[in-house]
Amino acid sequence: MPFKLTILGCSSAIPTINRNPTAQLMNVNERFFLIDCGEGTQVQLRKYQLSFQRINHIFISHLHGDHYFGLIGLISSMHLLGRNKELHIYAHKELKEIVDLQLKASNTELNYPLFFHSLPEVDETIILEDDNIRISNLILDHSIKCSGFLFEEKRSSRRIIKSNVEKYNVPFDKMNSLKDGADWINPQGEIISNDILTTENSLPHKYAFCSDTRYHESLIEKIKGVDLLYHETTFMKDLEDRAMKTGHSTTYQAAAIAKKGKVKKLLIGHYSQRYKNLEDLLQETKDIFSNTSLSFAGLVIDFKEI
Amino acid sequence: MPFKLTILGCSSAIPTINRNPTAQLMNVNERFFLIDCGEGTQVQLRKYQLSFQRINHIFISHLHGDHYFGLIGLISSMHLLGRNKELHIYAHKELKEIVDLQLKASNTELNYPLFFHSLPEVDETIILEDDNIRISNLILDHSIKCSGFLFEEKRSSRRIIKSNVEKYNVPFDKMNSLKDGADWINPQGEIISNDILTTENSLPHKYAFCSDTRYHESLIEKIKGVDLLYHETTFMKDLEDRAMKTGHSTTYQAAAIAKKGKVKKLLIGHYSQRYKNLEDLLQETKDIFSNTSLSFAGLVIDFKEI
Repeated sequence: MPFKLTILGCSSAIPTINRNPTAQLMNVNERFFLIDCGEGTQVQLRKYQLSFQRINHIFISHLHGDHYFGLIGLISSMHLLGRNKELHIYAHKELKEIVDLQLKASNTELNYPLFFHSLPEVDETIILEDDNIRISNLILDHSIKCSGFLFEEKRSSRRIIKSNVEKYNVPFDKMNSLKDGADWINPQGEIISNDILTTENSLPHKYAFCSDTRYHESLIEKIKGVDLLYHETTFMKDLEDRAMKTGHSTTYQAAAIAKKGKVKKLLIGHYSQRYKNLEDLLQETKDIFSNTSLSFAGLVIDFKEI
Repeated sequence: MPFKLTILGCSSAIPTINRNPTAQLMNVNERFFLIDCGEGTQVQLRKYQLSFQRINHIFISHLHGDHYFGLIGLISSMHLLGRNKELHIYAHKELKEIVDLQLKASNTELNYPLFFHSLPEVDETIILEDDNIRISNLILDHSIKCSGFLFEEKRSSRRIIKSNVEKYNVPFDKMNSLKDGADWINPQGEIISNDILTTENSLPHKYAFCSDTRYHESLIEKIKGVDLLYHETTFMKDLEDRAMKTGHSTTYQAAAIAKKGKVKKLLIGHYSQRYKNLEDLLQETKDIFSNTSLSFAGLVIDFKEI
């Protein structure tokens, strides 16, 4: 099943002409999960042709504006565009009051049910779970209450063995059930075991989103072995004191977490607007952890390719 | 003195990739006044190189999101960029609570004084006035409380008569005081009357901003003879019923107000996202009032050239 991340914005507090504030979209089996929603996110979704109405769940890490000022605009546009299905928002509880007040001021009664879920006070609590995905919170160490999110695929589809499927003349419309583990009963009533027709796929994918946070080693165990770790690098290593003071991390610190957590790949972002050349941040991070990429709007990471 | 309007956004409720929601900047004698502040306005200001920190007064017409969802982001960025001088916001009173709640949620104590001024309940009340400018409210007929704004230059500088200034050897550094009406006393103690050195300039400029509103004829007297009328045209003329129902106007209705109000020029905007080709709206409006322009982001109108 698809397990893909699209970056919609990667700036820190102040948006610039070229860098939108934080927002990311996870596509899990064609269901869309939005992570953070900085100002301008709805336009970014349009730009990358990601339909608003396929988003049913939005996760807001914390209530600094660069992570949620675009939410009320998205909620409003969903309404104006005729949405009628439920929308669920997972955030710190103060957000409900903010959204309610704005809807009241514009005399808006939404066409669709909007549910708020307070983020748990206890770390590593499951926030949302179904057959395909489990999403938990990761309490971070920022200047205000802040939560990362861990997305864990619960099972991956089995992989078709093409030669055997052809040999046993399995019709094309049975492929999905084979991927789900079903046996095949041919027109003669013979049972062809799933083991013959498919093979086990890779391990279920895991994505950890960690923004904004100071360096804190207790995170390491929680993100251990994920395929992809997004960890903020607001600053370069020379500004470690400033990072500590403002509740952020440096390139070296993000890389240390990735290395100690033995993650497959590190994605950095939430760059301070002072940095014009992001390659410097990338290079510094790679000094410690080589499999690192810069996030930028429009970047798509397919977990199958990590 | 400069009296210039810059359009930052001209879309109606739903922002699109190419059209930002409503925001306009008036430059009156190098002081910046922001009118409305839809989502993304701070990035638009950057794009057109208009410094945030020169804005001391912000006017919000009403509390539909496409007119103010960008305000909290702008307030936050002004803070993060080290502003310390006062900012004044003129809006319906509910906005104060919305902004206060968002600042509280992010645990932000602004570096600068932020003052809210409730828009008057009585029509055509002066909101702000100094030696150069008088700004009043224009109560509009929308689906929620909504106010237009009338910007009136109080006096225009006198125009220098170059040949006479040269004849009397007036030094260059006295030009501004001549423009302000002062006489010139030469080194011999002779008084050269201002009438000899300058001539009267054009009449003081007037700008009326009217968005969002139904067609209502009581507006005509209030905007009579302005140099520029911005009047919304959310819809084309075939959607007059929809305009009435939603509290908006059509091309024909905006043009009728401009014609009956004998304004010099009409600027239309707040286009429904259904219209891809704005030339159709322009042509329809021009059928009734020929001196009409489309608003678009980046458009600058210098009132001297109207």
